[in-house]
Amino acid sequence: MNYKMKIQYDGTRYYGWQRLDNKDTIQGKIESVLSKLYEHKIEIHGAGRTDAGVHAKGQIANFKAKPVRSCKEIISYLNKYLPEDIAVTDIWEEDDRFHSRLLAKEKIYCYRIHNSNVLDVFNRRFSYMVPEKLNIDEMKKGAEYLIGRHNFTSFCNNKNLKKSPVREIFSIDIEKVDSEIIITIRGDGFLYNMVRIITGTLIEIGHGKRSPEEIPLILNAQNRKKAGETAPPKGLCLMAVRY
Amino acid sequence: MNYKMKIQYDGTRYYGWQRLDNKDTIQGKIESVLSKLYEHKIEIHGAGRTDAGVHAKGQIANFKAKPVRSCKEIISYLNKYLPEDIAVTDIWEEDDRFHSRLLAKEKIYCYRIHNSNVLDVFNRRFSYMVPEKLNIDEMKKGAEYLIGRHNFTSFCNNKNLKKSPVREIFSIDIEKVDSEIIITIRGDGFLYNMVRIITGTLIEIGHGKRSPEEIPLILNAQNRKKAGETAPPKGLCLMAVRY
Repeated sequence: MNYKMKIQYDGTRYYGWQRLDNKDTIQGKIESVLSKLYEHKIEIHGAGRTDAGVHAKGQIANFKAKPVRSCKEIISYLNKYLPEDIAVTDIWEEDDRFHSRLLAKEKIYCYRIHNSNVLDVFNRRFSYMVPEKLNIDEMKKGAEYLIGRHNFTSFCNNKNLKKSPVREIFSIDIEKVDSEIIITIRGDGFLYNMVRIITGTLIEIGHGKRSPEEIPLILNAQNRKKAGETAPPKGLCLMAVRY
Repeated sequence: MNYKMKIQYDGTRYYGWQRLDNKDTIQGKIESVLSKLYEHKIEIHGAGRTDAGVHAKGQIANFKAKPVRSCKEIISYLNKYLPEDIAVTDIWEEDDRFHSRLLAKEKIYCYRIHNSNVLDVFNRRFSYMVPEKLNIDEMKKGAEYLIGRHNFTSFCNNKNLKKSPVREIFSIDIEKVDSEIIITIRGDGFLYNMVRIITGTLIEIGHGKRSPEEIPLILNAQNRKKAGETAPPKGLCLMAVRY
């Protein structure tokens, strides 16, 4: 049977999604609990390989196993033995051909900026604090240029990219709620650090250090050095994956 | 000069508000930073002596010091040297007679219950998880009996109470937002663990283990053993103090 799971995690203390020897990773933790349940090695496939420190509310993963356990049994066992910063919120039986990463049609990420000079102690692990006031209208103008199908080489930290650097961004919404700015990016897929570099560049536009009109030039340059800083991981959260 | 401060903290790793030798407390941390700033011992008075593990979004404290620093300097210094789970969000110059605890007219506490059988990893430090569905209408009925001026001995964990056990509760609001139940209690003051025992008792009513009509009997008994469990500290937060 092919099982599909929805997973939530606070990524603060993890070295990211992907399994690594001798390091705590989300994939590693979940595989180790599943392997205990089935009494043999189980491998899971995650839709997005989130970086160290990045969070998820709607990561999707799948794994294959003999149909000896009900979905209810699997989810109970996982949530009993997983650490308190990882939770499986749903599990379904899926068609054998389902693959969480290869078949993903859309991913939605949120980046949270705490735009205030006073720390928000309750969200300090989930929000990036920027004390200087950001101009949201300018950030929105800059974001407009990123919508659509582009070569995102300038927004990728992987220098030896083997796959195509072309991705489509469906939408970028920027909204301010109290002292928080939330950037929601929907796209068909994202390159390594792409959401964090887009965010870092939009923050520089919000600061007035760059103009929104620079975005097309950055895209055309196909040169990582032309874009802004990589925003820190803690503000980023994988919200949903659609198939 | 008499300074009044508004303070926010994640109480998870503290032994409560009140200064204790060789233990991390909120009062202790703030006093130690202020004493460094003024180069002599400074004592602060908090409006509510929150227990170990309890949080605050609107704790109020005051301290007296020579007017050698501006409010802006004091708040900057505090937020620079305080740990990341404590923040001072406001500071004002006050009348000399102002005392944050003695003059408080109203305190507002919130208790957050995560009423779901799936862990919410992002709020796990700030919300008490109750997997069994709670009947909110019954909880509201029970809460009604607590409104007003009563002897709250049954809702106090201090057996050797020297002051009066009479307090007035102005309102108890219980609302459900997604899978979270938020209990907001406003009153002129609260006895030791009083909000947590009220919450624990209301949870037992929500479970169906008690009927709402037991509340007047519990109040009349003036006996701690008649009320419910003390709910854990992590769900509790001091929201505001009014003068």
